[in-house]
Amino acid sequence: MPADPSATRVHVRGAHALVERPGFEDLVAVEEPLEIRVDGEPLAVTMRTPGHDEELALGFLHGEALIDRPRAVGPPADLAANTVEVAGPLLGDPGERRFYTTSSCGVCGKGALQQVAVNAPAPPPTGRPQVPAALLAALPDRLVQPTFARTGGLHATGLFGADGELVCVREDVGRHNAMDKVLGRALLDGLVPLHDHLLCVSGRLSFELVQKAAVAGAPVLVGVGAPSSLAVALAQDRGMTLCGFARGGRVNVYTGVERVSG
Amino acid sequence: MPADPSATRVHVRGAHALVERPGFEDLVAVEEPLEIRVDGEPLAVTMRTPGHDEELALGFLHGEALIDRPRAVGPPADLAANTVEVAGPLLGDPGERRFYTTSSCGVCGKGALQQVAVNAPAPPPTGRPQVPAALLAALPDRLVQPTFARTGGLHATGLFGADGELVCVREDVGRHNAMDKVLGRALLDGLVPLHDHLLCVSGRLSFELVQKAAVAGAPVLVGVGAPSSLAVALAQDRGMTLCGFARGGRVNVYTGVERVSG
Repeated sequence: MPADPSATRVHVRGAHALVERPGFEDLVAVEEPLEIRVDGEPLAVTMRTPGHDEELALGFLHGEALIDRPRAVGPPADLAANTVEVAGPLLGDPGERRFYTTSSCGVCGKGALQQVAVNAPAPPPTGRPQVPAALLAALPDRLVQPTFARTGGLHATGLFGADGELVCVREDVGRHNAMDKVLGRALLDGLVPLHDHLLCVSGRLSFELVQKAAVAGAPVLVGVGAPSSLAVALAQDRGMTLCGFARGGRVNVYTGVERVSG
Repeated sequence: MPADPSATRVHVRGAHALVERPGFEDLVAVEEPLEIRVDGEPLAVTMRTPGHDEELALGFLHGEALIDRPRAVGPPADLAANTVEVAGPLLGDPGERRFYTTSSCGVCGKGALQQVAVNAPAPPPTGRPQVPAALLAALPDRLVQPTFARTGGLHATGLFGADGELVCVREDVGRHNAMDKVLGRALLDGLVPLHDHLLCVSGRLSFELVQKAAVAGAPVLVGVGAPSSLAVALAQDRGMTLCGFARGGRVNVYTGVERVSG
């Protein structure tokens, strides 16, 4: 087939890509599939921005309660990129994840909360850490996003100390991936459970993000956007502080207000 | 356990919920699991905002190329809410969806594009419809979002005629769900393939959203946010017009510029 001179071409350069057609060019965030394998068996495929793939795999498996400590992980020698190999065995049956069915309720939010309660460790300590509301409201400004600045296309998650000092930030086209990468890094660095840390995300607060934070033992989760009903219910159930709409120096505290001072 | 007077309570009222604790209340978008069953067998669970569940199930199955026309669907008599039952049989094996592996490439974006090419119908007609850039840029303003206006927590997808007249809009906590609901409605109304329609989403443009639009035969997809690299590559591969950053009277045309006039 002869090349079409008006066609759009995409040139991938790490975490961003140059898109060009005659008279137009723009940088966009890269999205590629990643296959997570355990002992040679494919477990899951996620669409993610390349980079920190080992962290993503470990964070994903930890959030599903399939591992409870770091495992050996790396690209398999006999496969192309976009695959990571994790050393097993797993702690549970991955086939049972994400099904919120109980015999009493069919499928419901209560079933989803119960599943997280089974997978998550003890709730974080009550009333600790104490964090000024102004600090919580300022966390999004401390989420350095080098690739977002160039593409406008990435979600970010940041891990902070209780004093608001940035420990780690990760970007991804998928907000759940950005959270998984941060939690995988924290697992590798021996910081889990995250009882003395704060998490902040650049977007909305879904059930899934609160679930991942809960399994990692995080006491405080802040979002720039709105929470969902089940995100609020889960945070209350797990004794977490959940804050939304962190912008313009203000923040809404939906649960766990006893950790918020000032 | 005695009731904790400082605890946060969540009262669900349809698509939104009242969150209240002493001294604070707010409306949030409802997120609940929905189990999609086919002939009595559980197929998938998605976290969605209740409402239009039949459309969601049909749109999801169509996007996965598991059905090609409407099926009988409804809540099963013997189960609680948050479950929908669809009449089978399916056109393919649902166990094979979402795995982008080929023997030549391991896992890669090219494999993902190939999988969509297999599932999607013929690409939409070249150069049709012709749409002024100003109309494309104005589509987000026509996305009426009644629940977002109250909660700030919902994504929206709109289906428009080629003249920009709104046909259908759906909201959901999950952007893929909002698209599935719109496409399920279009399937029920006999509008698929959507060769003379425009689709518009309130957020970013992921591979998954372009995939769903491609399988439905949509020639034009507009987003308020940024596209990913694989979203652009897929739109080019399928002969679609992909537009991002539709705001302030302007729009970036990433692919298929021959449909854009003015």
